[in-house]
Amino acid sequence: MQGLMMDYSLTIEKILFRARDNFPYQEIISRMADESIHRYKFINFYERTVKLMNVLRTLGVKKNERVGTFAWNSYRHLELYFAIPCIGSVLHTLNIRLFPEQLKFIVNHAEDQFIFVDASLTKLLTPLQDEFKTVKKFIVMEDGAPVDPGLKNTVMYEELLSKAEFKEDFPLLDENQAAALCYTSGTTGDPKGALYSHRSTYLHSLGICLADTLALSVNDIILPVVPMFHVNCWGIPYACCLTGSKPVFPGAHLIGKPLAELIQNEKVTLAAGVPSIWNPLYQFLKKNHYDVSSLRGLVVGGSAAPRAMIENFDKDFGVKIIHAWGMTEMSPLGTVCNLIPEIKSQDNSVKYKYMAKQGLGVPMVEMKIVDDEGKTLPKDGVSNGELLVRGPWIIKEYYKTDSEDAKSAFTLDGWFKTGDIASIDKMGYLEITDRKKDLIKTRGEWLSSVEMENFLMSHESIMEATVVGRQDDVRGEAVVVFLVPKEGHTENFNKHTLIHFLSEKFVKWQIPKESDIHVVTAIPKTSVGKFDKKVLRAQLKGDS
Amino acid sequence: MQGLMMDYSLTIEKILFRARDNFPYQEIISRMADESIHRYKFINFYERTVKLMNVLRTLGVKKNERVGTFAWNSYRHLELYFAIPCIGSVLHTLNIRLFPEQLKFIVNHAEDQFIFVDASLTKLLTPLQDEFKTVKKFIVMEDGAPVDPGLKNTVMYEELLSKAEFKEDFPLLDENQAAALCYTSGTTGDPKGALYSHRSTYLHSLGICLADTLALSVNDIILPVVPMFHVNCWGIPYACCLTGSKPVFPGAHLIGKPLAELIQNEKVTLAAGVPSIWNPLYQFLKKNHYDVSSLRGLVVGGSAAPRAMIENFDKDFGVKIIHAWGMTEMSPLGTVCNLIPEIKSQDNSVKYKYMAKQGLGVPMVEMKIVDDEGKTLPKDGVSNGELLVRGPWIIKEYYKTDSEDAKSAFTLDGWFKTGDIASIDKMGYLEITDRKKDLIKTRGEWLSSVEMENFLMSHESIMEATVVGRQDDVRGEAVVVFLVPKEGHTENFNKHTLIHFLSEKFVKWQIPKESDIHVVTAIPKTSVGKFDKKVLRAQLKGDS
Repeated sequence: MQGLMMDYSLTIEKILFRARDNFPYQEIISRMADESIHRYKFINFYERTVKLMNVLRTLGVKKNERVGTFAWNSYRHLELYFAIPCIGSVLHTLNIRLFPEQLKFIVNHAEDQFIFVDASLTKLLTPLQDEFKTVKKFIVMEDGAPVDPGLKNTVMYEELLSKAEFKEDFPLLDENQAAALCYTSGTTGDPKGALYSHRSTYLHSLGICLADTLALSVNDIILPVVPMFHVNCWGIPYACCLTGSKPVFPGAHLIGKPLAELIQNEKVTLAAGVPSIWNPLYQFLKKNHYDVSSLRGLVVGGSAAPRAMIENFDKDFGVKIIHAWGMTEMSPLGTVCNLIPEIKSQDNSVKYKYMAKQGLGVPMVEMKIVDDEGKTLPKDGVSNGELLVRGPWIIKEYYKTDSEDAKSAFTLDGWFKTGDIASIDKMGYLEITDRKKDLIKTRGEWLSSVEMENFLMSHESIMEATVVGRQDDVRGEAVVVFLVPKEGHTENFNKHTLIHFLSEKFVKWQIPKESDIHVVTAIPKTSVGKFDKKVLRAQLKGDS
Repeated sequence: MQGLMMDYSLTIEKILFRARDNFPYQEIISRMADESIHRYKFINFYERTVKLMNVLRTLGVKKNERVGTFAWNSYRHLELYFAIPCIGSVLHTLNIRLFPEQLKFIVNHAEDQFIFVDASLTKLLTPLQDEFKTVKKFIVMEDGAPVDPGLKNTVMYEELLSKAEFKEDFPLLDENQAAALCYTSGTTGDPKGALYSHRSTYLHSLGICLADTLALSVNDIILPVVPMFHVNCWGIPYACCLTGSKPVFPGAHLIGKPLAELIQNEKVTLAAGVPSIWNPLYQFLKKNHYDVSSLRGLVVGGSAAPRAMIENFDKDFGVKIIHAWGMTEMSPLGTVCNLIPEIKSQDNSVKYKYMAKQGLGVPMVEMKIVDDEGKTLPKDGVSNGELLVRGPWIIKEYYKTDSEDAKSAFTLDGWFKTGDIASIDKMGYLEITDRKKDLIKTRGEWLSSVEMENFLMSHESIMEATVVGRQDDVRGEAVVVFLVPKEGHTENFNKHTLIHFLSEKFVKWQIPKESDIHVVTAIPKTSVGKFDKKVLRAQLKGDS
């Protein structure tokens, strides 16, 4: 017997309607390529989005077809976030930092029919345009920068919009209809696509507005530094419209000063980004006085938030780091690290320790850890195993791929294998020890590279550090450290002292030889800002 | 094309699993009939609920069958809230305050197979037992009171539980499976049933945990004074398990002192109930010193929160009234009155005015107001019309009834007609003026009885007041007031002064004659604590 409740599908246009009906006068702020600030209100956004839906139809975009975006965070990108799914097509956000080969692969694999591109980014597409097999047109969004004259088949966004009719025509969509597509950054093999649905997007939006997760609210002024081409911008654009938070889009200006300015001038309450964004901001704030007291938190995801960063922001600026963890395959949110009353009441050293964990599972995300045979391990905070997850915003398969690699990411009984090694304690706190493939097996024992990285980065003279394994006949793998010293510590970096420092926490066989400590000026990063260990390992192979 | 997200059904056992996995050590507190305090933890609750599922199976409860509960708020009732839906059966909470005729009608209409009853309430069922056509057994929950010896076919809850196996057997359920049944209190015609689904219950639980609604959180210690036999206890039991809030169940002790004690002793952060609960609590706190500083809010629903109550609690105790509105047909939550920044920044008189409104629509609840022809009216805060709603936790039809009355509650295009007359302003704030059937038409003009009631109750010497229409040849309807003076004001209540007071706000033709002002010792109330205007109107008809 079924309940007698309305068949009310959780589709994205309903989020848009909330923005229109409940928060018409709320502002949306965007910093453009020319550093000007653009402001308009949710009601203007709604009207332009309706017109944009008609622009898409006029262009010939059909239901289910993929439409690419290649753009910074801005109000136009927000319009695309809604208009494309609302006509039943699929928003495909392209990562502007991908290597050309990957970008080509992704556009062709997704069969994108159109690409919406910021004027300031057109030059990146010009060399690739002839290799995009399905793209019919580039729609250029005027962000104040010149359009690369080499890009063919272009048409201007505002021109199309100015001609479009304001006619509210929202097709009835099934809640399981595909809404958006995002590819993993592909640290192994080809990039793989996660195809989100309207339902998963809607539920995820609710997920980040819960009081015990990110608690997005009409009281928030939120700065998503995380790019809109990176896993739905962590769901923030949709959640803003659902709940009336005021978004402040930073455009292309993601280093310390412009972020500090936006936070101060717009009285930002919550900002979200990867650690490599917050580190330079911290350094900048240390040297320059800006008022960041409006902040109730900095959401850190993408990579683990180092404990030192958590401590520094708290002690120096009273800014709380809210550690979150997710994956492209998870829409992305999996956990948020808020402190439960039992921990909140303890002293700072305990609190910081917990804040450096990935945190508690968000409602609707189930988690368990398993051993190599798939047996569930206890949630005791000690047992380490591979983390499996399931929930309504987690993929059940990758988009259009039959590779064994893609299939092996799922258990027979429907869990997604994250590839992360983790523990979960009795209070439910998840702590990720390492990526499965980033564990180092030295002298027959597993070493967590992440653990050593975090310890290294707590050293006063180290800015960034990463740890990988190098094939070694004696030890199986040898531990290799790459590190970037802080300003002023570069010249006479003392490896001997560092080894002594490591011995505070690690045993002898885990500590690298002096020749395996590489002091560098930069560590290669992936397109989403993570340490690119694939590149480092390849370098080491060439060296040995 | 469908998205490639997991087919993860939103079913109630997943809420239970969260309680088990994330908050095993959280406490559940219950005050029993003998005033003892019972405490156990979520993990104990989980284990007993699993056993209770097996008890139900042993009793012979089948999928889809309705199982009644007739009980106060307590941990055993919580166990039933989960165990019954988790085996695919339907939890049917019976209102213990119903008139015998209504109770008989409801049990027989729902075809309840079993009724779980608190020992202290057995005596209420004894006279009716032979008229319940489908009930096979009464399962008595030992709350410290004696069992009425007249009740036949009884079996003891704890005895069954002590014999039951701890075997976790959760059937796979569709998310649209019926989960719970609740009847309207029936101010017109027979009571009508709302049949909730697992999905609607899950979404509603998310709905009340959002930062901008009731923001239920693991930090909360919540006192649901609203009975568990009243519209899912406003969803609090499910939300507690989803988010780890600590529930404090008050049992049968709902007047001032025991509530004040629980708030003080358990450091309650949030309490929820009808205005007729909070009025006596306020009076009690004025005379007795209790520490209620742990409270972040009192949620008021069921009837409108009078502005005077909002002001008094704030000024005298710093306690914020959180005004909410809902209906049995809506699971129940429709709106919550939190103040948006634009209003928060204004002075108290503006804030109180807004706090007395029903508030902003909760995400997933759409609202509009329409005129008599069904045409949508503007959201300008001035236009008044019937309030229509839709959303995933709102009924699409009543349970097993073909009456015209039941059918006429829905529009052809799928909205539920609330029967409330309301306005919505440009910021989305809903203000309910009246029940459609409680408007009074006098001299051809509509008068809102609620408006006059609220004004009367703001008078220093009036405790409760209600306003109804009386047939009158000249005026169509004449305005009639029933009022209960406050202690110490009973003796020489001056009607003349009252008429003068009314003239501050109402025009001459709206003001009742002295003979239409009835000073009484109590106003009849419905089983859920609302003024029973049906009874008053019948009295007046008899009189005239």
